[in-house]
Amino acid sequence: MKGLSVGVDVGGTFSKIGLVAPDGELLRCVSIPTQPRAAPRDFASRVCAVLDGWRYDSLGLGLAGGVDAATGALLFAPNLKRWIGFPFKREFARRLKVRTVADNDANVAVWGGYAVDLKKKPRCVVGVTLGTGVGGGLIIDGKLHHGATGSAGELGHLTVRAGGAPCNCGKRGCLEAYAGTRGICRIARRVMRRPPSPLTPKALADAALAGVPGARKVWDEYGTWLGIGLANAVLLLNPDAILVLGGVARAGRLVLDPVRRVFAAQPFREPFARLALSAPAERDWGCVGAALLSREASS
Amino acid sequence: MKGLSVGVDVGGTFSKIGLVAPDGELLRCVSIPTQPRAAPRDFASRVCAVLDGWRYDSLGLGLAGGVDAATGALLFAPNLKRWIGFPFKREFARRLKVRTVADNDANVAVWGGYAVDLKKKPRCVVGVTLGTGVGGGLIIDGKLHHGATGSAGELGHLTVRAGGAPCNCGKRGCLEAYAGTRGICRIARRVMRRPPSPLTPKALADAALAGVPGARKVWDEYGTWLGIGLANAVLLLNPDAILVLGGVARAGRLVLDPVRRVFAAQPFREPFARLALSAPAERDWGCVGAALLSREASS
Repeated sequence: MKGLSVGVDVGGTFSKIGLVAPDGELLRCVSIPTQPRAAPRDFASRVCAVLDGWRYDSLGLGLAGGVDAATGALLFAPNLKRWIGFPFKREFARRLKVRTVADNDANVAVWGGYAVDLKKKPRCVVGVTLGTGVGGGLIIDGKLHHGATGSAGELGHLTVRAGGAPCNCGKRGCLEAYAGTRGICRIARRVMRRPPSPLTPKALADAALAGVPGARKVWDEYGTWLGIGLANAVLLLNPDAILVLGGVARAGRLVLDPVRRVFAAQPFREPFARLALSAPAERDWGCVGAALLSREASS
Repeated sequence: MKGLSVGVDVGGTFSKIGLVAPDGELLRCVSIPTQPRAAPRDFASRVCAVLDGWRYDSLGLGLAGGVDAATGALLFAPNLKRWIGFPFKREFARRLKVRTVADNDANVAVWGGYAVDLKKKPRCVVGVTLGTGVGGGLIIDGKLHHGATGSAGELGHLTVRAGGAPCNCGKRGCLEAYAGTRGICRIARRVMRRPPSPLTPKALADAALAGVPGARKVWDEYGTWLGIGLANAVLLLNPDAILVLGGVARAGRLVLDPVRRVFAAQPFREPFARLALSAPAERDWGCVGAALLSREASS
């Protein structure tokens, strides 16, 4: 088939390798352990082994960390520390002889949602990825915005309550300290008499839908914090749309309803009045976005 | 002289009308009362009377509020409420027969600092204006970023401490609640045994430079809040540079030193490592920027 692309979503534990059609359909997807303690060249070899026999025109990599677009090297990467500096883009381009791009994993996921779900119609979009951590990506004037050092979109570490809850990054009061997995679990332990065990966002969503006392209150509080963080991004950038992605976004209205309430209560109405807020159905947005992004590249 | 432009900075109380050279030099500046309770057409007449006999090729307006770029109409404007909807751009273009542009007052000031002080070298700049309120403007990819409804850059109303100090906008914990005039005065009353009277940012800067007990602590706290707000913008946008403008920016290092300390303490080092932070010498950046912006316009 013509015009297929491969997307590789490289996470700290698992990596997904997907074959993606031009319309964003994921035709095939293989998951492999990342093994971040092994050499990055070994990782490249294992990915190339998976791709043996696949037919595609370009390849995109989404890497969990800050990425230098020219070489595809990680600049910082809390979960892939040993791979910092390795030129992933060049390595894959050399081995596979196809057009290759590399970008941050949240950026490629947001690009996927932007291209497929929003069909690239809005010009300015803020994307947030909700998982263990809170990541983000920005579309400005129809393009991914990388910033001066490729680290734009760090939504999770915006301070929303200076001096507040401790965050994994070392600061206090970051959005992620409230809207990351650790944050929602902390809220659940405070609010619920009997929080589910094991305590996960999925278990909390099931509990809320089953009417377990307190569970909905947990989501209301979680979504309120998320709304405060997203409102900061809206006040700064005044986007046309917000995309909510990532595993926790599957909770759907449990997350979006309190965000909408925060938006409706903003005194500055203009930037919120026609803002589109959506959590598109879960896909491997990282794979899809990385693949589609590689189609955009000029060389 | 060839290539001159006029900039009109329309504030809630006073408006400044400046004749500006292509390099940003302010050749002449006239201040008139805005009289926001009179009809906007009367204001236009008074501005045109001042301009009688001036020679210039284009005119830029900076208006205190959200501005529709096409017509130059205010969409929201707490201090110019009666003028909302009046098409300033069309009115001035019709009367003066020159190329006319209109934008938000903070945006044009940031454009002035960007064009003159930074010589348009960086691609992505966050500008903050420190006065009674806290405003802002964004340069992305070398252009002013307006966003979906022309209200991008509302730095002052980013939440930095949810549930914190009350802000003039009605929310709590906005950056402006700490880094606006009301905020610094609140800090001074808490921190200083004998705050200056009348209590103004200027008096507090003089007190700090004169070694009055507690005054420097006021600025340290003020600058720390500003740093937290600016760090949010940096984490989101990853700019090359930050411009600090407005009357309070005259306090110079009293403001910038604590901001630098907040930046140096960030766990995410990449976006802060090579970030340029400056407070260019005070000029009428609103006039200068509005004038220079009108030179850029295509029609």
